[in-house]
Amino acid sequence: MSQRILDLFGIELPIIQAPMAGATTAQMVIDASNAGGLGSLPGAMLSIDQMTAALDEIRAQTHKPINLNFFAHLAPAADPAKQMAWRSTLARYYVELGLDPAEPIPSSARAPFDDAYCRVVEQYRPEVVSFHFGLPEEALLTRVRASGAKIIASATTVKEAQWLAERGVDAVIAMGYEAGGHRGNFLTHDMAAQVGLFSLVPQMADAVSIPVIAAGGIADVRGARAAVALGADGIQVGTAYLLTPQANISDVHRQALLNAPDDSTVLTNLFTGRPARGILNRLMREIGPLSDQAPAFPTAGGALMPLRAITDKAGISDFSNMWAGQSFRLSPPMGTAELTRLLGHAAAGTPAT
Amino acid sequence: MSQRILDLFGIELPIIQAPMAGATTAQMVIDASNAGGLGSLPGAMLSIDQMTAALDEIRAQTHKPINLNFFAHLAPAADPAKQMAWRSTLARYYVELGLDPAEPIPSSARAPFDDAYCRVVEQYRPEVVSFHFGLPEEALLTRVRASGAKIIASATTVKEAQWLAERGVDAVIAMGYEAGGHRGNFLTHDMAAQVGLFSLVPQMADAVSIPVIAAGGIADVRGARAAVALGADGIQVGTAYLLTPQANISDVHRQALLNAPDDSTVLTNLFTGRPARGILNRLMREIGPLSDQAPAFPTAGGALMPLRAITDKAGISDFSNMWAGQSFRLSPPMGTAELTRLLGHAAAGTPAT
Repeated sequence: MSQRILDLFGIELPIIQAPMAGATTAQMVIDASNAGGLGSLPGAMLSIDQMTAALDEIRAQTHKPINLNFFAHLAPAADPAKQMAWRSTLARYYVELGLDPAEPIPSSARAPFDDAYCRVVEQYRPEVVSFHFGLPEEALLTRVRASGAKIIASATTVKEAQWLAERGVDAVIAMGYEAGGHRGNFLTHDMAAQVGLFSLVPQMADAVSIPVIAAGGIADVRGARAAVALGADGIQVGTAYLLTPQANISDVHRQALLNAPDDSTVLTNLFTGRPARGILNRLMREIGPLSDQAPAFPTAGGALMPLRAITDKAGISDFSNMWAGQSFRLSPPMGTAELTRLLGHAAAGTPAT
Repeated sequence: MSQRILDLFGIELPIIQAPMAGATTAQMVIDASNAGGLGSLPGAMLSIDQMTAALDEIRAQTHKPINLNFFAHLAPAADPAKQMAWRSTLARYYVELGLDPAEPIPSSARAPFDDAYCRVVEQYRPEVVSFHFGLPEEALLTRVRASGAKIIASATTVKEAQWLAERGVDAVIAMGYEAGGHRGNFLTHDMAAQVGLFSLVPQMADAVSIPVIAAGGIADVRGARAAVALGADGIQVGTAYLLTPQANISDVHRQALLNAPDDSTVLTNLFTGRPARGILNRLMREIGPLSDQAPAFPTAGGALMPLRAITDKAGISDFSNMWAGQSFRLSPPMGTAELTRLLGHAAAGTPAT
């Protein structure tokens, strides 16, 4: 195992607990970092107040390095006609659940990195800042760098990794096809050509000189070791943390993770407007899973919220985004700290403690 | 590395040179087997006479174990209306190339395993027989088993692996999403839910007690080692052999393998009627890559042959099936024997000789 990811972040084990907006709690970050890995707090679904509250809690309970994660998309232009068509597509589900299809809907809650978030970075000085969907504008990136943070970002192709390396990113996350949640693609949007982790890691390691962190499909000791054998400097693990006591997920999500078969995740854009991997459900079967009808990221989700509010409570997964990577069934049943040590030592090639 | 795949096949290195119909030559099989791996002759595109000629050549030049590979599909019912619609879709390309869209077309040349092929097995007694697209009918399978051959077959999900194990298969090939050529799926046909090798191998190894051979995306030493780390007993490698002197591929195919970027392969059913991974070209961009218009396997290919006959010669890849796995860019530049030893020793964890 290469030492350079440990030196870069100042951590003890070459594992990043992946930021999972909505599911990652402050306690998960604390436990992952205290265990020697890099805990990651996802900012995309947190208001400034929620984020600073979480950071206060985290900094009070760990002095180890942490990662603060953001989405780097551009907020889309308003497209009321597309929204109306989308609501029309979903109207039959509203009627089925006794809702008025014309009722006001909430707006989606995924915010891009901006001045306000950047001020939080400057105030709290996380040791690492990670970006998804490319990078923010140069002025913001310069401020993040000036705060002292190491900067990392996701890539789904060699070209994206090279693009990030050219812009001075400190390490790149090689996000395999197997990964759960939103794909980090930003130069390509062809989901048919996304690359499996087995093919992606070695090609990316050959193409850039910065460290490569393997992500997607790594959920147990075998995966951690294989990622390093492929040439990765470290691993990022998400889905395996979803069943820890430190995760905040719905019961329908938990039940699906425990019971769905191995080939039940697909890429879908229905829940936010961008492709993300999750467990197949009724909405994905009937409309998608990838559909031109979904409005631009992140606005597709608003019209689904009233549906979910009813079905989730009733234990029905029809309209829920149940993000999961393809190795979800391999998740070892344990807490965040133990999982971090288990997989971190496997990646490091050192005996688990 | 587990020893059991070596014992099962009577080989020295845990590597199978994948059968690639059209591209695999008798010399490739000879060199792979003589190097200590398991050379594989694909039967699907060979007549009985061509197959026995190849087997005569192979048996004369190696006494090591070999694998004879067959497709186990059922020949489809004739569907002249669907064929006519397909020819209508392709008519504009015929006109563009100065051909008459109504000219007689050849029939596709992929044959399923049947009595005649089974007689070849009984006569030549290959040490291993491998099947793709499931298994042939029980009576034929019984005859293959009675010939003394070990039987292996491809699986793309845990359920398919269990189905094969229940039918007495001696080892299962875990075919990851990354693999080039025809996907081996037979119980599922949902291409959106196909599983990457990273997630597939450990889940399959947990689910069946027979040996698991990893296939798809393994092209270099790193991949060979990673497959074993994931729990595979051995590896099957295809695409990496395409650039050896022992491969029989067209110039357009060779040029694409040398020059296409990492994210340029997709699954397409346009060339035969079943999904296969190949390098993106004009036909796939304009019609597919996965289209309901393609007639049933293997009949889709006939109408493309007159187009290919013109373009291939002119160095134009517009209508060519250029099969490739997602790691095609990692292929080490060497001959079949050297490649077999390099990857075989990497999988075995022994020093390359």
